Amino acid sequence: MTRISFLNGQFIDHSQAFVHIEDRGFQFADAVYEVVLFANKKLVDFKPHFERLIRSLNEINIKHNIKIAEIEKIALELFAKNAMEKGSVYIQVSRGVANRMPWLPKDIEPSLIMTVSPAKVLSDEEFDKGASMMTHEDIRWKRCDIKTVGLLAQTLINQKAKDLGFDDALFVRDGVITEATYSNFFIVDENDMLITRAADNLILQGITRNRILDLATKNGIKIVEKNFGVDEIFKAKEAFTSSSTLMLRPITKLDGKQIGEGKAGEITKKISELYKQFIQS
Amino acid sequence: MTRISFLNGQFIDHSQAFVHIEDRGFQFADAVYEVVLFANKKLVDFKPHFERLIRSLNEINIKHNIKIAEIEKIALELFAKNAMEKGSVYIQVSRGVANRMPWLPKDIEPSLIMTVSPAKVLSDEEFDKGASMMTHEDIRWKRCDIKTVGLLAQTLINQKAKDLGFDDALFVRDGVITEATYSNFFIVDENDMLITRAADNLILQGITRNRILDLATKNGIKIVEKNFGVDEIFKAKEAFTSSSTLMLRPITKLDGKQIGEGKAGEITKKISELYKQFIQS
Repeated sequence: MTRISFLNGQFIDHSQAFVHIEDRGFQFADAVYEVVLFANKKLVDFKPHFERLIRSLNEINIKHNIKIAEIEKIALELFAKNAMEKGSVYIQVSRGVANRMPWLPKDIEPSLIMTVSPAKVLSDEEFDKGASMMTHEDIRWKRCDIKTVGLLAQTLINQKAKDLGFDDALFVRDGVITEATYSNFFIVDENDMLITRAADNLILQGITRNRILDLATKNGIKIVEKNFGVDEIFKAKEAFTSSSTLMLRPITKLDGKQIGEGKAGEITKKISELYKQFIQS
Repeated sequence: MTRISFLNGQFIDHSQAFVHIEDRGFQFADAVYEVVLFANKKLVDFKPHFERLIRSLNEINIKHNIKIAEIEKIALELFAKNAMEKGSVYIQVSRGVANRMPWLPKDIEPSLIMTVSPAKVLSDEEFDKGASMMTHEDIRWKRCDIKTVGLLAQTLINQKAKDLGFDDALFVRDGVITEATYSNFFIVDENDMLITRAADNLILQGITRNRILDLATKNGIKIVEKNFGVDEIFKAKEAFTSSSTLMLRPITKLDGKQIGEGKAGEITKKISELYKQFIQS
């Protein structure tokens, strides 16, 4: 079956989906994106994803005329055309095509591309066992709050972690945890308090992160958004990451040392269940 | 006349030069580049540019089979095919095309694109008057020594400077000057000492920068590579930037305040002449 993608107004054969070499996304990382989970025949938290896309576009001054209903419709059509009942949709908007110039060209049309893919799902076994991480200096730029395609640091460091036998890397900047390469990071302390870094310019404010904080609060789990370092992780009972496609993922080892009891914790499991119920609701 | 560019082994009509939407250069800024000046029918300092390209590729683990003679030949052919006697050539190598994954795909072919453009030349008047800059926090990642296409910070801040009436922005990290948005930065102190930041992971080690240091040394101008802050710029007699296409550009104002005598300085002029002679040699 031919994979179908969406490019600048058209549904096309994915293998034929091309952008010009002077698209700013290709020469300046001048583009932003979102990945949205499709489950239970719905786009999960589509509105906040769309709003974050618009915020990203605004932060880097890309003029656009993108409407939520239009993007949602294209996404759903893509899943239908690719005969997929679940998966994720990738939405990228770049500034568009212009003769290469090291500042911003005026009056060009943004490029919109959308693709759908199967979403990786953690098996129960993978979930229970949890993942292992290594810490790594956060070498990224200081506007991680904008979801741009400038992902080279994340990509290289994620691969480095894998090459060294870890599942992922956890970024540390100035002694404080920021986030993992492609996900936010949480711990549960000895008082069952759910802790994650407050969203600032140094992390992406995850849509799943926000939903978890909301679900936790509504279900009697106390939350606090604050800075913490590696020491606090080893004092914690549980740790997990959150992302739109993998949802909650228990983290049971850091730099080779066990976190908590070395398996998915009770609060993590509870929130994971709450999140799955939310998706099914 | 049709503009001709080079893409993955072929000379083609520039308007028809496309890469796949899942080229890693478009979705992860997973690509590196060089810009080389073409003057006096030669590629200026081509060997060190090529060597830096290879270093950039190695630093981000892109496997390639690129040969210097091949790239030089393509560049010269591009200028010929576009009937250009001078200008600059842009060379970009991306990791290549793969299904989107947030780590490194294996065994894919890198994409090579090359384009030629007219080089902007400063008029004598522009040179003598010099340019104005604003200082700006250096928010970039911590591997500015790799010449990647992750240029969004530079682009946005260069445009911000222009919007505020400056010609460019000068980056400051932790109180120390790094470089300008797309060029290295030099000052000449009261003892006619030429000073520029030592090349580390926080600046790109410019090919023109290196050539200037070499020419200065060979012509009796003392050089020192060291950290300095804004205070030292205002104590300096002269300041200029260096880049492959604009070569030396006097900087005569910073944040609205005059540097030195507010015009191109004597040492700057001398080095600029030496550089022009070098190009013509």
